[in-house]
Amino acid sequence: MHNDVLGDIHIASRTLSKCEAIIGSILDKKALKRPGILAAHRLDAMDVEATKALIRQTKSQIVLNAGSAFLNMSVLRACIDVGVAYIDTAIHEDPTKVCETPPWYGNYEWTHREECERKGVTAVLGAGFDPGVVNAYAALAANAYFDRVDSIDIIDVNAGSHGRYFATNFDPEINFREFTGTVWSWQESQWTANKMFEVKRTDELPMVGSQTTYLTGHDEVHSLSANLDVPDIRFWMGFGEHYINVFTVLNNLGLLSEKPVVTAEGLEVVPLKVVKAVLPDPMSLAPNYKGKTFIGDLVKGVRDGVETELLVYNISDHEEAFAETNSQAISYTAGVPAIAAAMLIAKGDWDCHHMANVEELPPVPFIALLETLGLPTRVRDAKGDRAFDPGEFRQDRRQSARAGA
Amino acid sequence: MHNDVLGDIHIASRTLSKCEAIIGSILDKKALKRPGILAAHRLDAMDVEATKALIRQTKSQIVLNAGSAFLNMSVLRACIDVGVAYIDTAIHEDPTKVCETPPWYGNYEWTHREECERKGVTAVLGAGFDPGVVNAYAALAANAYFDRVDSIDIIDVNAGSHGRYFATNFDPEINFREFTGTVWSWQESQWTANKMFEVKRTDELPMVGSQTTYLTGHDEVHSLSANLDVPDIRFWMGFGEHYINVFTVLNNLGLLSEKPVVTAEGLEVVPLKVVKAVLPDPMSLAPNYKGKTFIGDLVKGVRDGVETELLVYNISDHEEAFAETNSQAISYTAGVPAIAAAMLIAKGDWDCHHMANVEELPPVPFIALLETLGLPTRVRDAKGDRAFDPGEFRQDRRQSARAGA
Repeated sequence: MHNDVLGDIHIASRTLSKCEAIIGSILDKKALKRPGILAAHRLDAMDVEATKALIRQTKSQIVLNAGSAFLNMSVLRACIDVGVAYIDTAIHEDPTKVCETPPWYGNYEWTHREECERKGVTAVLGAGFDPGVVNAYAALAANAYFDRVDSIDIIDVNAGSHGRYFATNFDPEINFREFTGTVWSWQESQWTANKMFEVKRTDELPMVGSQTTYLTGHDEVHSLSANLDVPDIRFWMGFGEHYINVFTVLNNLGLLSEKPVVTAEGLEVVPLKVVKAVLPDPMSLAPNYKGKTFIGDLVKGVRDGVETELLVYNISDHEEAFAETNSQAISYTAGVPAIAAAMLIAKGDWDCHHMANVEELPPVPFIALLETLGLPTRVRDAKGDRAFDPGEFRQDRRQSARAGA
Repeated sequence: MHNDVLGDIHIASRTLSKCEAIIGSILDKKALKRPGILAAHRLDAMDVEATKALIRQTKSQIVLNAGSAFLNMSVLRACIDVGVAYIDTAIHEDPTKVCETPPWYGNYEWTHREECERKGVTAVLGAGFDPGVVNAYAALAANAYFDRVDSIDIIDVNAGSHGRYFATNFDPEINFREFTGTVWSWQESQWTANKMFEVKRTDELPMVGSQTTYLTGHDEVHSLSANLDVPDIRFWMGFGEHYINVFTVLNNLGLLSEKPVVTAEGLEVVPLKVVKAVLPDPMSLAPNYKGKTFIGDLVKGVRDGVETELLVYNISDHEEAFAETNSQAISYTAGVPAIAAAMLIAKGDWDCHHMANVEELPPVPFIALLETLGLPTRVRDAKGDRAFDPGEFRQDRRQSARAGA
């Protein structure tokens, strides 16, 4: 839909038919803005040399890594070597490890910071919705709304329903990994460890009403804690009682383990892979998904000497997302911001020539662009609940604070 | 403990070390009543010719099949061919089928009835506790207590605790099969189909207190309905809410299926076998098992022209069972009655020279013998709750009813 800005578009996957299905859907919807190249390629993105060859062959200038979390390091390596821009939407994971020590970016991506800087390679990390847009919301609040931020609570609620007994909204292997390890949060300016489902909160949220969410370990806490001077940064994810019950049973029985067990017949099997095999394919849920998602930042701090609370958020609708893209709102909110990031790099706004998490880049152009891409932002504070207005956030309060000091 | 009656004892299994462990435990406890042969043998009891050879080699006269439910047909075949007595404790199952159409015995065991009769082979089917002792309780009530029986409700409650998050008390593969198919019961003199956990009752039971049990498909309903003229025969099993929750989650997800699934990596796996691999080994539960089991028959009918209710039951204690046999009460109650059946065949009381379910054999010698083997019976009726007294049940009321007619 944005090849007027992005130019030629090449889609690559281990499974060529997946790329071709996406291209078919785009052509069916007559979504290309102007005639141009839209091509499918077979690629194992763990193979750095093959990835470099494909980048060169297609003359790509921006690589959007929307693959599994296990690919980041190989795709980033290829981009640095060739000297093209890199974007991803989630933190790197080692398939053999669950929940490493914080800050997670420090274990993988940030070890390439200096090299990106030196070679002038733009690498935008975590440019989905969460991480991604919520990082921009945090930067917006810290830079252009508050004089001092005391806490950022990122709240992610899927208030929709897929109508199945139980399913994960994306690959169960990746999904469950978020909840089986230690929950790391940044509290009182230090890392705090909790267990999953140990700490919860209930908020009255716009559009989706009263929602209970649970303290969860998540990518953005690991960069925001390093990049913003805020003592409390937490991530909260909404779960229904039914989800928690099923998760708890499977986890307590050991069925979510990535470590192999041996059956009585001597077959070595990873239980989590069997659970994945019996669960519905997340792709199959989209056509019947109903309801809305809420993702936003509840930020507390001081503005003009007054204790203030700001909620910056997006509401997305599963059925509307499916009508536009054949995907439900969870995929939609994760995928569209990465396209916005690519467009901002193409236009120059975000072509920073170093490695950056989203909160290190100008938030207003990103949020304003997302308004036009189907992801509108709203804000709620003492003045009420209203659509995001870039004019409200034009002043860099950090500069005015420094000027006043 | 009863080789004075049973003579030489040979134990056979695919895994020789299991037999040797049993023999070691017997010798440790100095439990042999008199010097005699107690020997271990390796045998695949699916191999009829090997089984026949072992019977002949050991000069066995009584074969007690305490193997898995998949072995009945091959062991029975061997016994008929050699002409020795056969005992089992549960109905035959085909590993590829779950919950066949009733009556279950009609699909397998009873197809050999005529041959046993013709060749004079004693074959006692289902001689554990349930099926087994509860069939004898039903016969006792029908033959020697009531003039007319209207209903028999067999109630099985394990009020003990193993202290683990979740475990099955015997092989999960066999255990879950009892609950994943249709629940068949005999009501108003016909087969009635229900789903598991669809129908429940709560009773105030001796020793174990108020207990909720669920209508369950079980072997004895299939023989009692054919052998006794009683319109309502039902089996009820006790489950805690936690057990039902875990079972429901696993079952709804498809993790209790015996049909293979294929993982994303192309590995073909039977989910139930993976669940079995992650659950505690049932054998490992025994040392820490605490509490009691209740198994009994609640029988309603008419006696001397009056509507009457009789409860015939046994209470067993997990810790006492473990002290005597290194097994918990569920194994104890299933295993000891089969020994009693073997002793009654050896003595002649039950050496009937045809195929019989337990309710077709004299109940009083069986129940009286179990008194001396650690499984005492109690009765409760309008006259109160008391120990079983054989003298109370000496008269065959069917004969007196016929004499009076």
